[in-house]
Amino acid sequence: MSRNKAVPERRLHHPDRDEIRLESVLSALSDPIRLRIVRELARGHDDMACIAFDLPVSKSTSTHHFRVLREAGVIRQYYEGTSRMSRLREDDLEARMPGLLSAVLGAE
Amino acid sequence: MSRNKAVPERRLHHPDRDEIRLESVLSALSDPIRLRIVRELARGHDDMACIAFDLPVSKSTSTHHFRVLREAGVIRQYYEGTSRMSRLREDDLEARMPGLLSAVLGAE
Repeated sequence: MSRNKAVPERRLHHPDRDEIRLESVLSALSDPIRLRIVRELARGHDDMACIAFDLPVSKSTSTHHFRVLREAGVIRQYYEGTSRMSRLREDDLEARMPGLLSAVLGAE
Repeated sequence: MSRNKAVPERRLHHPDRDEIRLESVLSALSDPIRLRIVRELARGHDDMACIAFDLPVSKSTSTHHFRVLREAGVIRQYYEGTSRMSRLREDDLEARMPGLLSAVLGAE
C-alpha cells in the first residue's frame, strides 16, 4: 500500500475535524482554481500528487491555493517521497457541514 | 399585500438567476456577518428591513455586506417607502446550486 511510504506531516498544519470552520471552507471554495482542484480530487476518488494537476497558474500560485484548501480543512496533504500528495477530507467535511461538498460539486 | 407598495428596484442591481455564480455565492457566504444576515432571513421566512438586523457593525459596513449578498444573487433588496427590505433568493439559489443554501444553514 502506497500509504505506508507516507512521511509524517511534520511541516504541514491541518486543522482537526472540530476546528474546521464553515466560513473558512466557503472562502477556500470561492476561488475558481481551488474549485477546480477540489473537482479534480473528487472526480479522481483517489489521492493525487500536486504535480498531476494541470492548472493555468504558476507553481507558487498553485502552492498557495493548495495551502488555502489545506488550512481550511478541505484537503489533506502529505509527502510520498518528494511528491506532495493531496486528498479531499470528504468525511470530515461531511461530518461538519453535511451536504455542502456535494452541493458545491453538483452546482453548474 | 405589502408587495404592492414596493418601489421598482431602479438603483439596485440584481443578477438574473442564470447569472448567479457559485464562486460569488460562496464568497458572499464566507463572512460571519453575512452568514448571520442569511441565517436571520432564513429563520424569519419573510422579508426584513435592513434596520431590523441587530448587527455589531457600523451602518456603512452593514450596507456593504448587504450589497455583497445582493450582487452575488443571495438576497433581493427593494424599497418599501424609505425602508430597504431584503429577502433570500431561495428559489434562485436552489435552482442554480441545489442543496447549497440548506447545507450552509444546517452547518454548525
